Amino acid sequence: MGRTSDAREKILSAAQSLIELRGYSALGVAEICKTAGVPKGSFYYFFASKEALALAVIDEHWAGQQRTWTRILNSGEEPLQRLRLLFEETEAGQRAGQQGCGTVSGCLFGNLTLELSNHTEAIRARLQEIFDAQVELVDSVIAEALERKEITATDTREAARAVVAQLEGQVLFAKLYNSTHRLGPLWANCLALLGARAPRETVAGV
Amino acid sequence: MGRTSDAREKILSAAQSLIELRGYSALGVAEICKTAGVPKGSFYYFFASKEALALAVIDEHWAGQQRTWTRILNSGEEPLQRLRLLFEETEAGQRAGQQGCGTVSGCLFGNLTLELSNHTEAIRARLQEIFDAQVELVDSVIAEALERKEITATDTREAARAVVAQLEGQVLFAKLYNSTHRLGPLWANCLALLGARAPRETVAGV
Repeated sequence: MGRTSDAREKILSAAQSLIELRGYSALGVAEICKTAGVPKGSFYYFFASKEALALAVIDEHWAGQQRTWTRILNSGEEPLQRLRLLFEETEAGQRAGQQGCGTVSGCLFGNLTLELSNHTEAIRARLQEIFDAQVELVDSVIAEALERKEITATDTREAARAVVAQLEGQVLFAKLYNSTHRLGPLWANCLALLGARAPRETVAGV
Repeated sequence: MGRTSDAREKILSAAQSLIELRGYSALGVAEICKTAGVPKGSFYYFFASKEALALAVIDEHWAGQQRTWTRILNSGEEPLQRLRLLFEETEAGQRAGQQGCGTVSGCLFGNLTLELSNHTEAIRARLQEIFDAQVELVDSVIAEALERKEITATDTREAARAVVAQLEGQVLFAKLYNSTHRLGPLWANCLALLGARAPRETVAGV
């Protein structure tokens, strides 16, 4: 075991891998510590409870994903192209995960929403904040596309929710069928949801 | 305790309620039997394992939902109206569940996909069959709408997957935000995904 600052990272990393493989409820603290290679005493030094660990895993995962989403969605590309890059990044991330562990692990936030949101309010609140932030990021790109008259959808908030819902739904299927090809149509579906003015030529370029 | 035939139904019903509330992994056989009001010995008389119970819960739930989907999607209504009725039925079902237990429970199949598909292949296979059947039912309605030149989407299978993915994604949000209002935009989003020729007047009628 390394320094205590390493132990916290090791616990977080082991917990995230195990949650992605088997969900949260099926895990015990002993198994997490064994996988992390740290003594069980360390766990309660860093985390008050298993729920506190889940919140830390969520925060850590979102910190990384938020950086990626912000980099892509605030980039200098044309607005609709930024959404396309987001879907490509999502597909690449799921493919990398599949190559690493043999199965598509899906979206950690979606997984935990369906497993946990109805029995821990702290986790529900945190996941709501994250999906709100995702919708907000997508909304601002859609608003730019609308400003440029590239789309016909006028309720940009509702359109952003539809795009994120489509993403979550297709990622669910990618996990179920263990196939990242399920994410291929995201871009064309996004253009349809937004009423993009020239979807055909854009889609043809995919 | 009633006849043994009742005991099986009681176990199934208790298991479905508990899975909807707390997921599958968090449950033990003892708790299921206590909720069902049947002795623990009964459980293993009817079910070889907890996984066998989960498969039976899935089958029972799909038997009911398949009847509903088939009734609505094979009805004499115009094709796009049948899809609208399906979304209304979904919203009504989630609202009834929320009134019963205080929270939107979401889609049992989506919940179990995210919780279990990566660690039991038997459940993954069963859930794949169910989502395949849902896509097939929606596909046949979309094909009719295409035949009638009411939509512009030509890949009806991919369009059906997009519609079911949108449904799963929005139901996930309805669960996360504990709000069935999240399901309100399903109809307009479906029309957009299909490239319905006259969505505006139809949407205005919602």
